Amino acid sequence: MLKLYEFSSSGNCYKIRLLLTQLEIPFKRIEIDITKGESRSPEFLQKNPNGRIPVLEIEPGKFLSESNAILFYLSAGTKFFPTNKWEQAQIMQWLFFEQYSHEPYIATSRYWINILEKAEEYKAEIKQKQPGGYAALGVMEKHLEKYQFFVGDRYTIADICLFAYTHVADEGGFDLNQFSAIQNWIEKVKNQPLYQSMNK
Amino acid sequence: MLKLYEFSSSGNCYKIRLLLTQLEIPFKRIEIDITKGESRSPEFLQKNPNGRIPVLEIEPGKFLSESNAILFYLSAGTKFFPTNKWEQAQIMQWLFFEQYSHEPYIATSRYWINILEKAEEYKAEIKQKQPGGYAALGVMEKHLEKYQFFVGDRYTIADICLFAYTHVADEGGFDLNQFSAIQNWIEKVKNQPLYQSMNK
Repeated sequence: MLKLYEFSSSGNCYKIRLLLTQLEIPFKRIEIDITKGESRSPEFLQKNPNGRIPVLEIEPGKFLSESNAILFYLSAGTKFFPTNKWEQAQIMQWLFFEQYSHEPYIATSRYWINILEKAEEYKAEIKQKQPGGYAALGVMEKHLEKYQFFVGDRYTIADICLFAYTHVADEGGFDLNQFSAIQNWIEKVKNQPLYQSMNK
Repeated sequence: MLKLYEFSSSGNCYKIRLLLTQLEIPFKRIEIDITKGESRSPEFLQKNPNGRIPVLEIEPGKFLSESNAILFYLSAGTKFFPTNKWEQAQIMQWLFFEQYSHEPYIATSRYWINILEKAEEYKAEIKQKQPGGYAALGVMEKHLEKYQFFVGDRYTIADICLFAYTHVADEGGFDLNQFSAIQNWIEKVKNQPLYQSMNK
């Protein structure tokens, strides 16, 4: 059985749980407390030398890291990853957008505020993250004003990827009220078959 | 003909030039001066709403952004992207590693020091980027102590991706002297057929 080394409240880990659940693939969850440095232990570094979660153990000793690489791996050949080359490229574009222009702002702020509960200590850093996070939400909003989903007008790993931290953006201090297209899209994702919430 | 909207001295743009050259695909280069805000002009935002280079125009009006998504798109079905599913997943792992754990440290420092020539002004930020950049180089070194290349022991887009900013890491204030496996790998990349240097 697949093993997912994860920190439950991480959106990057939730992405994998959501996809596996919707693919109806059973998996075992192993909690790694990143707030206690457990992803930097010598034992864990054997699994991912970069010291980050999630890590998927595909078979004993065979590990894959980077949440979006795991989404790519698991979705290949399923309805969540198109066969069309141009659509595949667009999915990749959104996956890299998420890791470079979205996650470092919205997820990082949420980590300080909601996971560590140190909003006061990280006040300056949180403020610094605001423009980048809102810029990413702006790019998403503009796209979703025209399209139902991110690629090919249907639910794919691009939606799973971007949903993970966007639907809890308020926990990172980002107000979604001004983004009505994003709000509609969040509801559409929540209405997908076999949808499972983050805290399950 | 393909059009590459690029800022020549950006490693993210060099990745695309190197792959296109090695694939022997002709392309037209269009310079966008990011230091003058040209990637944030209303006209450019039509091409990439996220306001970043590189952007590849595949046919008139059909644009792809995110350097690593472009590598994925162009290398599909070529010797630079394997057909094996597990190797593809590992390539993706390194591509996301590069954008999340490598580029934001090494490329950003290089931008301040070498492109903007404002090392003094960004002194504090550059210092802050050092541990992350060296951590990424450490992960690469450890891998390259065991393997010739990043995936499947042959030259792929994982190498092109990581080579772009690693071989000029010194321009970002990172000393490669302590990383002998990385240095050997850099030489191997430079010896690949149809290799072209960054400043061409």
